[in-house]
Amino acid sequence: MRAADAPDTPYDTDALSRELDARFSALFGRECAALWVATGTAANCLALATMVEPHGGVVCHEEAHVEMDECGAAGFYLHGAKLLLAEGEGAKLTPADIEHVLAGITRGVHQVPAHAVSITQASEYGLVYRPEELAAVGMLANDSGLGLHMDGARFANAAAFLDCAPAEAVGPAQALSFGCVKNGAMNAEAIVFFDPERAELVRWRRKRAGHLQSKGRFMAAQVLAMLDNDLWLDNARAANTVAGVIAEGAGDRLVHPHEINELFVRMTQEERKALRDQGFAFYDWDDACVRLVTSWATDPDHAAALAKAISAL
Amino acid sequence: MRAADAPDTPYDTDALSRELDARFSALFGRECAALWVATGTAANCLALATMVEPHGGVVCHEEAHVEMDECGAAGFYLHGAKLLLAEGEGAKLTPADIEHVLAGITRGVHQVPAHAVSITQASEYGLVYRPEELAAVGMLANDSGLGLHMDGARFANAAAFLDCAPAEAVGPAQALSFGCVKNGAMNAEAIVFFDPERAELVRWRRKRAGHLQSKGRFMAAQVLAMLDNDLWLDNARAANTVAGVIAEGAGDRLVHPHEINELFVRMTQEERKALRDQGFAFYDWDDACVRLVTSWATDPDHAAALAKAISAL
Amino acid sequence: MRAADAPDTPYDTDALSRELDARFSALFGRECAALWVATGTAANCLALATMVEPHGGVVCHEEAHVEMDECGAAGFYLHGAKLLLAEGEGAKLTPADIEHVLAGITRGVHQVPAHAVSITQASEYGLVYRPEELAAVGMLANDSGLGLHMDGARFANAAAFLDCAPAEAVGPAQALSFGCVKNGAMNAEAIVFFDPERAELVRWRRKRAGHLQSKGRFMAAQVLAMLDNDLWLDNARAANTVAGVIAEGAGDRLVHPHEINELFVRMTQEERKALRDQGFAFYDWDDACVRLVTSWATDPDHAAALAKAISAL
Amino acid sequence: MRAADAPDTPYDTDALSRELDARFSALFGRECAALWVATGTAANCLALATMVEPHGGVVCHEEAHVEMDECGAAGFYLHGAKLLLAEGEGAKLTPADIEHVLAGITRGVHQVPAHAVSITQASEYGLVYRPEELAAVGMLANDSGLGLHMDGARFANAAAFLDCAPAEAVGPAQALSFGCVKNGAMNAEAIVFFDPERAELVRWRRKRAGHLQSKGRFMAAQVLAMLDNDLWLDNARAANTVAGVIAEGAGDRLVHPHEINELFVRMTQEERKALRDQGFAFYDWDDACVRLVTSWATDPDHAAALAKAISAL
Repeated sequence: MRAADAPDTPYDTDALSRELDARFSALFGRECAALWVATGTAANCLALATMVEPHGGVVCHEEAHVEMDECGAAGFYLHGAKLLLAEGEGAKLTPADIEHVLAGITRGVHQVPAHAVSITQASEYGLVYRPEELAAVGMLANDSGLGLHMDGARFANAAAFLDCAPAEAVGPAQALSFGCVKNGAMNAEAIVFFDPERAELVRWRRKRAGHLQSKGRFMAAQVLAMLDNDLWLDNARAANTVAGVIAEGAGDRLVHPHEINELFVRMTQEERKALRDQGFAFYDWDDACVRLVTSWATDPDHAAALAKAISAL
Repeated sequence: MRAADAPDTPYDTDALSRELDARFSALFGRECAALWVATGTAANCLALATMVEPHGGVVCHEEAHVEMDECGAAGFYLHGAKLLLAEGEGAKLTPADIEHVLAGITRGVHQVPAHAVSITQASEYGLVYRPEELAAVGMLANDSGLGLHMDGARFANAAAFLDCAPAEAVGPAQALSFGCVKNGAMNAEAIVFFDPERAELVRWRRKRAGHLQSKGRFMAAQVLAMLDNDLWLDNARAANTVAGVIAEGAGDRLVHPHEINELFVRMTQEERKALRDQGFAFYDWDDACVRLVTSWATDPDHAAALAKAISAL
Repeated sequence: MRAADAPDTPYDTDALSRELDARFSALFGRECAALWVATGTAANCLALATMVEPHGGVVCHEEAHVEMDECGAAGFYLHGAKLLLAEGEGAKLTPADIEHVLAGITRGVHQVPAHAVSITQASEYGLVYRPEELAAVGMLANDSGLGLHMDGARFANAAAFLDCAPAEAVGPAQALSFGCVKNGAMNAEAIVFFDPERAELVRWRRKRAGHLQSKGRFMAAQVLAMLDNDLWLDNARAANTVAGVIAEGAGDRLVHPHEINELFVRMTQEERKALRDQGFAFYDWDDACVRLVTSWATDPDHAAALAKAISAL
Repeated sequence: MRAADAPDTPYDTDALSRELDARFSALFGRECAALWVATGTAANCLALATMVEPHGGVVCHEEAHVEMDECGAAGFYLHGAKLLLAEGEGAKLTPADIEHVLAGITRGVHQVPAHAVSITQASEYGLVYRPEELAAVGMLANDSGLGLHMDGARFANAAAFLDCAPAEAVGPAQALSFGCVKNGAMNAEAIVFFDPERAELVRWRRKRAGHLQSKGRFMAAQVLAMLDNDLWLDNARAANTVAGVIAEGAGDRLVHPHEINELFVRMTQEERKALRDQGFAFYDWDDACVRLVTSWATDPDHAAALAKAISAL
């Protein structure tokens, strides 16, 4: 509404867009450059474009969103660069997981060299990197001359879970895809650069990818609204909390411990049907389990009902 | 508002997004497939991707938006394909202008072959292709085995000016970037395919370009609102009309005849300063002229004041 | 020599280059189009470019040359398309191996769709697809709407091993990278298309990749020399035979059965040193085994000496 | 022959390939890194890849080989980067010609920024940059933060014409496509980097483009043979000289002054026919003139006969 009522200069020259750098710098306690973009896929790929040459590769988890759910966007934005897949417990990567991938790259110019690491906070299985885990990954990346990117589609949920300074939740990453859409925004995410000069490249690449919207103030307004009065953390906390209610009911059925707003719950086909017959909706992850995701707007009573229904199975 | 109050399935599976095909089919009187996308740059490039191989080229005007203002987006989306620049009066292309480019491609595999033609309706100089002009360009494209794309960032203004059936304003183009943002929308355009099967490719490419928004209903809602009760034409007509008021005042200063909501007006630096001192804002096109653009929301009194100020120079 | 003494028209318009189609058509008993190119990497990628869109994928073995040894060339030539890695015994793929990969692609436009399958004849572990195995893979590819490419860097060795008509060794593949360099040529391979119209695209793409040499007759001459009097099969047979001598000596140490001119032989570090101290040269494949490759020019006495040395370990 | 008789380690690890850096360093009197590659198109594009980001552009003459005759290879190798076309007398560029292009780039991220300049020595019209002209272009490039590449498909002819140290003929260019094929080699060119660290990137990119031949010694041998005893200059001088004989006969018909081994000679269709009826072969450049190219092997008597025939027209 604020943006609609205030026509302003186009693209990202408007007053709202120009607030972003300062707001994120304040949030993270150091100089940041931040750009809005419409989707997490674009955010991830544009951030990685500052780290990876077309002939290079990105070490990421084999179940990372950038590998599994972005239709090869990394190949497109990085001009044929390759995702170098690592295994890791709960879709998180340890230094050893990354080193295992790097150790397989031995044939000089015959193999794609790693240029960056991308980790997801919280992971695709809803698990949160602790600050010391981030430090360890960052040290390895640094020692190996690799950039470090964090896909933060659920960064808010991770930060809320850690209950620490946002800077600790991001650790030594050089670029963060700061997710807003899964946390209540309509269609705006932020790419936050902790080496602000990286943002310069992305200004060109964002335009070239058709992501520089002419009425950018509508994008900036969404991101700023998230930051105002820590709405981003309040929303995430709410989502995490109701997930906790369901987790309680799921008990031993949980594939991974409850940390954020995503739960993977073991369930037979019959059990799924029984729940669906009671009106509950969820995503069939695989034959073994379903995925339950709560949001800032999930009704606690509804969550309690689901918890009860699961424990009654 | 309608979209916000109605949570729905994600991406483009929601009820609003699923309305688009039928609505555009009704508008154009034949079967269409239509996809929302956030920007005109993305719309143009995704549409062209259905016509142009990476080793091919697109004949377009040397001052076309896709050449001048999209930071090489066509090279990105088309994987290195080339824009083959044509000259043409008022940024419009005649069959002869296009043939002149084609005639220069004689060296077999040593030169980039043309795969498509892209024209802009209305042109970058605010001029409108007449239905018979479109038919002539379409016939040449067809005879030469080339696709035909129309950049319709100001298609509404062209259709309003022609005051004909929308189908006549688009003529034989196979794909249309149907502009909404310059006509009042926040951040949604539509790509309309008159060969509906072309849309299938674009579904993949849109996702891969990070343009498949998860809350697509907000995009669809904007496009549908434009189509409801012909708002798109009402907005465009309003913009064209106030431009006419200014055009009257500009008289002989007009570089091109007034047709839509864009005017190019000859003006010295001193004259520009004089107008700006009176509070008017406009874009310095080049040393010879300024560009004046009106919108659906331009105040007619303001336009009249500008007309008077210009004629008083 | 023949090419050097006969200046001719440039690129691939010379008399030698123009012989290729007919010669390969005769060899395979059906209409073929064939183009020379300098390397197997270029041959593989140009062939795949006729089957795979930039947003698509190629199912190949996780140890395929195109994945492991071409520095991301497929990502470059296919404009970001993805290699979809399959597991398979001995670096060969069965229909079940391929189906396993296809079964994991379930998320619509969110995942890269398969557009082609690439198999290697003989495989990277020196194993040969039998005609019935090729038929089964071809049937799956066809049923799944996928192109089928064969990397034939060692196709001659496979054909010599099978001792069948070349057409049976290639089976239902639509394009074959016909290797010459590993079989004695200096720097020319052939890409053979069994759907000749595929070659048209590659004429453009070859030029665009800087692989259209101006004195193409030197390339054609090498390929033709291979075909003359079945030199390609004689060379391959010679290489296979001497490998057999070594295989005899290696006995139980062989990781894979001996079929062509490549052997993987289990050996400790001490044993490797012992052999090297005797003057033998070979490639350390991994901690468990070494790779031995023979050529058309390998001295049988040398091979016998190696066989003896290995069995004496 | 030397390479054929001396099996060596593969790719560019052989003794001949390892000589290249030192030999070019000696030739140019400063530290160089040099890589062989099969074609001038690949040489140009790989060299430019060290200077130009995918979202950037290369200022070159509108009739430059890289624009006119390489089927969009620059778009492929540079991942969609754009050629920014300049006009210039005789296909040469002056600082003013380049500045004119740069002056048109004013719209920030909406336009493709220039990252490099590419000039051709000698130009596509057979004209040679003088050392002071090169210095002036180099100064502009440097001041504008642009890389400077020289397409030297006919560099030998230019150096022979200038009769100066090779370093003066290359001036401040950071990378040179050192042509051998037009000067007698079979299929090897060299890319010479005067900032040797640029070569590192190209080692990856060459492999990725399928241009790293496994028997690289055959490539190196050709380049080294050219450098031995200044064969490259002898060949070029011979070609220039016979062109001079023809130029004498052409007199006023010359479109550009004679400098190297290329002549553009005005001729009517009837005159062309008359010459062809006498057995002469040449390329129809356009309606106004034909292109005559001599080589190191052109028979002086044949040239004299052509000169006589032209002056008799």
